[in-house]
Amino acid sequence: MKIEKVCILGAGTLGSRVALQAALSGYQVTVYDIKQEALDSSLKVMKKILNQLEKFSEIKAEEGIQALSKILFTLDPKVAVEDADLINESVIEEIDIKEKVWKQFGELAPEKTIFTTNTSFLLPSMFADISRRPDKFCAFHFHDVFYSKVVDIMPHPTTDAEIIPILEDFGRALKQVPVLVKKENPGYIFNSMLMAFIGAAGKLLTGEVASIEDIDRSWMVNFHMPMGPFGILDSIGLDTAWHVTHKMPDRASQAFAQLLEKYIKAGKLGEKAGEGFYQYPNPTYREINFLG
Amino acid sequence: MKIEKVCILGAGTLGSRVALQAALSGYQVTVYDIKQEALDSSLKVMKKILNQLEKFSEIKAEEGIQALSKILFTLDPKVAVEDADLINESVIEEIDIKEKVWKQFGELAPEKTIFTTNTSFLLPSMFADISRRPDKFCAFHFHDVFYSKVVDIMPHPTTDAEIIPILEDFGRALKQVPVLVKKENPGYIFNSMLMAFIGAAGKLLTGEVASIEDIDRSWMVNFHMPMGPFGILDSIGLDTAWHVTHKMPDRASQAFAQLLEKYIKAGKLGEKAGEGFYQYPNPTYREINFLG
Ligand SMILES: NC(=O)c1ccc[n+]([C@@H]2O[C@H](COP(=O)([O-])OP(=O)(O)OC[C@H]3O[C@@H](n4cnc5c(N)ncnc54)[C@H](O)[C@@H]3O)[C@@H](O)[C@H]2O)c1
Ligand SMILES: NC(=O)c1ccc[n+]([C@@H]2O[C@H](COP(=O)([O-])OP(=O)(O)OC[C@H]3O[C@@H](n4cnc5c(N)ncnc54)[C@H](O)[C@@H]3O)[C@@H](O)[C@H]2O)c1
Repeated sequence: MKIEKVCILGAGTLGSRVALQAALSGYQVTVYDIKQEALDSSLKVMKKILNQLEKFSEIKAEEGIQALSKILFTLDPKVAVEDADLINESVIEEIDIKEKVWKQFGELAPEKTIFTTNTSFLLPSMFADISRRPDKFCAFHFHDVFYSKVVDIMPHPTTDAEIIPILEDFGRALKQVPVLVKKENPGYIFNSMLMAFIGAAGKLLTGEVASIEDIDRSWMVNFHMPMGPFGILDSIGLDTAWHVTHKMPDRASQAFAQLLEKYIKAGKLGEKAGEGFYQYPNPTYREINFLG
Repeated sequence: MKIEKVCILGAGTLGSRVALQAALSGYQVTVYDIKQEALDSSLKVMKKILNQLEKFSEIKAEEGIQALSKILFTLDPKVAVEDADLINESVIEEIDIKEKVWKQFGELAPEKTIFTTNTSFLLPSMFADISRRPDKFCAFHFHDVFYSKVVDIMPHPTTDAEIIPILEDFGRALKQVPVLVKKENPGYIFNSMLMAFIGAAGKLLTGEVASIEDIDRSWMVNFHMPMGPFGILDSIGLDTAWHVTHKMPDRASQAFAQLLEKYIKAGKLGEKAGEGFYQYPNPTYREINFLG
């Protein structure tokens, strides 16, 4: 089977990016949301990204214009899913909303449509049955689309093995490195390693072994990276990190979740809030003498 | 107090590098070992590093020659420690040998000498008393000296607080970023985060969640790094990783230690053995199409 038409559910941060890359890669794309404002701001976000891509000579202006002409924004679920070969769902990370959406689109979608979800920490098996197409249901999880170009392909126990190579090819067509998560695992591959090392950083901090800055310095210098675990937490959002951390039963995770909660209650959610472990837009870890 | 003369115990991989950087930074250096071969090969290693530094225009040829003229290699412990302001111990990572060395040099060293150890996973409190100078005893732990330029300063409970700023300044003089480990912690800062994320990678592999290559790809693409956890393990040495992992009580670490043991028994110790998780000198993760 050949994928030609792609339907994106949810016009937020991730949905907009996946939709744009799919259009840049030549696919016909529909973007569905329940709010007109979301569709409007999605178009704005796409134009911003296209400007950036042009600036860094990754695309020509015409390619951007052509890509946008391939995208249809709609509030009508029937129009969105008409003739779709693949759905990639990027609605907010809430079980009941994702359930509702999959029930709805399981009824509306044509027979051929492959169902994929972008969920970060939930599992495809949670929605496979309600979609009434468990054999065609699979997680297809992007990271950032334009900067971190990797896509996790994670089937659940009754996913039809035949859709895996289709998704691998589709991922490559979208300029991503496809990686196979052979069995369901919360956090796929990268996020589970990320949370492990961030958990270790949290343990060093709550255990008063080292300061935020010295922990970040150690990571940055050893791995020649532009930020350490607390800088990364600021960019992920402390609220997102808390959602994962507070569910972990071990003592160190609980202590770290409590610390995150204090920051969150003080409004320090990270970069998006202007403050987290560091203050933005000019956090100390970006200063030249931070490693001096 | 001003540090002028530095005594390095153990002329192996790390001792040679610390000695060379100290000499490049203008210190008078003695390098002590129990084997003449070790001293001979230490000089060879230093010359190799100097060539590299010259090649990358980090130093001029004269600076290299001058640095070598500041280093005295000796098999005589008395000569080694004479008038030393600081000892940095880099003998092999075995408790009884480090104990023997610290007993010996605790007796020989002048009153003023600060005692530091480079141990990777042992703790300064294990040797502080036998050195008979617990107040002047502190871990001063380098990573690679020339590539990963960070030095951990880790006091034990009775280390005199006054030596911390002296070590911080000395670390900076050696072109390192000093980080303070406020209380004893096996693996300091970086190694404890490193082992956490490598443990998570091991769990993904032994749990058959993903392949070696896909785990590495996820890390490399997301963090824009030249290798992933299994490439890193190959460069650390699987035997070194096993020493840390097999002592961890949790099930995932035990399963990973068993897997490492299989590789080790098959002689696959990593890059130094020509094979580990990958084959060297041309591991697949360095091929252009690995992320293709
Ligand atoms: N943001 C990221 O970097 C990122 C990365 C990987 C995966 N994800 C996952 O992608 C999904 C979306 O995340 P996001 O950051 O884009 O969220 P977001 O809040 O930016 O966007 C979610 C969108 O879903 C829409 N929505 C809500 N209810 C809906 C419904 N019933 N039908 C259709 N649309 C509906 C909202 O109006 C909103 O526009 C989540 O599952 C998240 O875990 C996000
Ligand atoms: N290699 C690294 O990258 C690295 C990094 C950080 C810390 N360390 C730590 O540094 C220490 C040395 O590691 P290495 O990799 O250089 O080991 P190595 O095996 O390369 O060198 C150890 C040296 O100690 C000498 N030695 C043995 N017994 C001695 C004695 N009684 N007196 C004096 N010298 C003696 C040996 O002859 C050998 O030359 C270890 O504690 C290790 O954990 C190593």
